[in-house]
Amino acid sequence: MKRKIGVIGGGSWGTAIAILLLNKGYDVNLYLRDEKQLEKIRDSGENAKYLPGIPIPEDIMITTDLEKSLYEREVVVTSVPSQVVRNVLNSAKKYINKEQIIVNVAKGIENHSLLRISQIVEEILPNNKFAALSGPSHAEEVARNVPTAVVAASKEKNLAEYIQDVFMTPYFRVYTNPDVIGVELGGSLKNVIALGAGISDGLGYGDNTKAALMTRGIIEISRLGGKMGANHGTFSGLAGIGDLIVTCTSMHSRNRRAGILIGQGVKIEDAVKRVGMIVEGIKTTESAYELSLKYNVPMPITKEIYEVLYRGSDVKNSVYNLMLRDKKHEMEEAAQENKYNW
Amino acid sequence: MKRKIGVIGGGSWGTAIAILLLNKGYDVNLYLRDEKQLEKIRDSGENAKYLPGIPIPEDIMITTDLEKSLYEREVVVTSVPSQVVRNVLNSAKKYINKEQIIVNVAKGIENHSLLRISQIVEEILPNNKFAALSGPSHAEEVARNVPTAVVAASKEKNLAEYIQDVFMTPYFRVYTNPDVIGVELGGSLKNVIALGAGISDGLGYGDNTKAALMTRGIIEISRLGGKMGANHGTFSGLAGIGDLIVTCTSMHSRNRRAGILIGQGVKIEDAVKRVGMIVEGIKTTESAYELSLKYNVPMPITKEIYEVLYRGSDVKNSVYNLMLRDKKHEMEEAAQENKYNW
Repeated sequence: MKRKIGVIGGGSWGTAIAILLLNKGYDVNLYLRDEKQLEKIRDSGENAKYLPGIPIPEDIMITTDLEKSLYEREVVVTSVPSQVVRNVLNSAKKYINKEQIIVNVAKGIENHSLLRISQIVEEILPNNKFAALSGPSHAEEVARNVPTAVVAASKEKNLAEYIQDVFMTPYFRVYTNPDVIGVELGGSLKNVIALGAGISDGLGYGDNTKAALMTRGIIEISRLGGKMGANHGTFSGLAGIGDLIVTCTSMHSRNRRAGILIGQGVKIEDAVKRVGMIVEGIKTTESAYELSLKYNVPMPITKEIYEVLYRGSDVKNSVYNLMLRDKKHEMEEAAQENKYNW
Repeated sequence: MKRKIGVIGGGSWGTAIAILLLNKGYDVNLYLRDEKQLEKIRDSGENAKYLPGIPIPEDIMITTDLEKSLYEREVVVTSVPSQVVRNVLNSAKKYINKEQIIVNVAKGIENHSLLRISQIVEEILPNNKFAALSGPSHAEEVARNVPTAVVAASKEKNLAEYIQDVFMTPYFRVYTNPDVIGVELGGSLKNVIALGAGISDGLGYGDNTKAALMTRGIIEISRLGGKMGANHGTFSGLAGIGDLIVTCTSMHSRNRRAGILIGQGVKIEDAVKRVGMIVEGIKTTESAYELSLKYNVPMPITKEIYEVLYRGSDVKNSVYNLMLRDKKHEMEEAAQENKYNW
């Protein structure tokens, strides 16, 4: 019998995941909110707004009926922006039974509550098993069978291995990882650094500058993650530095593209408009900055980007503020603990 | 009194370092082997072969006289290819006294002996203090004052902080790091992965593929480094993933450019000729592969690149060999030790 999977969210990533799963021979539903978008997809055979040029197989049952999209689904994949996932899950709740497995593939931290998506799921669906799928995986490439590797994270080993089996293909390699917190933080907070990498590119700085920003960026994310209960190793993995690399170097990245425009002097609102899709990193910067205060972790790069986005700081000063800080040891915490007998 | 520094090696990096140090107000000598290159630089005012477009200040004393270049130098910077550094140091030995500090800025592992450059220095100059300077720092950008961050590594904290002071500028940020082994391995072995990243680009694979290759690449380097006495944290830092990022994504990288040609089907010898400078990664691949055997550490990506470069394997099979391996946990060793109570 065919495995039945429901995908909630018809953005680029939800659509690409639905196609990947259909190609594995599963019975796939795709839920989207917007009736007009649905009609356009039906008429044109592609999701022109979010995933242009990729034919959507007719066997995917696309619907705006949430109940129908969830009915008898063994796995429910959530792929909606982090600031609306709570609303969507509250609407979906009455159609979901406790045997269904929730796999979130979206990234972000809810503003104000500072909750990760797994925590929102746990609040709303406390009895359902949960896994996060994350890593360097631009939808545009996954939909074209470009070789890609990601992680499936769950507190339960069996569940992580099950999700690995569900998603893995010759083009889509899935590793397991037990660290849900780290995987969610890596995937979310890298969007802040990607904005910074874009700003650096937009200002005309070089490859050296961007590599330093990315490296020091993942170090400050890892520092926060450690305090929040994540495993440092996760940030060296696919959902950490791997996702950061792809987001900071690819023109597929909306966050990087928005950053480039901001670096070139375009106003933030206009940059977002010109990118034309949700720029998760802008909301995430606010959450990341608040997390750094809450957990009392120095995150100098995140702070500079927050100042630029939310306090009107001059973007040109940011890189020099970072370059001219006090002289530092590379691994500050380890050095403080005198782990090296230096 | 002006600080006196000698730089050995007139390639792009040695030249850029000499300019950086001169601009800090030091008395700088630059040694190069080739009398013709010296004359060309004197005539044109630039190092046209290795660092075109960058004026070389006349205050840098350029010489082919090794003794003169080393005379009274407080710090001696070595910037020569890893396979010839032994010869150069053997020639220099009689002009170097034990008070002089050696700072190596070149990358690579000596073939057959499998020695890191610090080990070669220790063999030849056992009484001299040593530091390694490494990180994402393309010479072409450093010479143009593009913001750059690197690490100074030494077993002695005081020495690392001294080197940090010697090199740091508003455009060139230096962090200290106690892990000489990790810094040297990171800087050297990333060139192997950069060849692979170039091959992936040359084959037409995507940003997802390259990010996965880089992430899994630094994980296998870190795995080897751990066995060789390095600190895993170093591979998450500027001399590890930072340098890997810049090498795998910049067109300044000779290793990446060679890889792209190989991926496009150009023969290895021809690819090296077309790049026109030493492609460190090709020699390093041999050393890296031998190190993986010596320390019994699985390095699947390094192995595939070794097979392509030294055994004539078809490059098109390599990515699929990597994608289709057994299903894995992301942090294999930690998982084996059951650190997660999974």
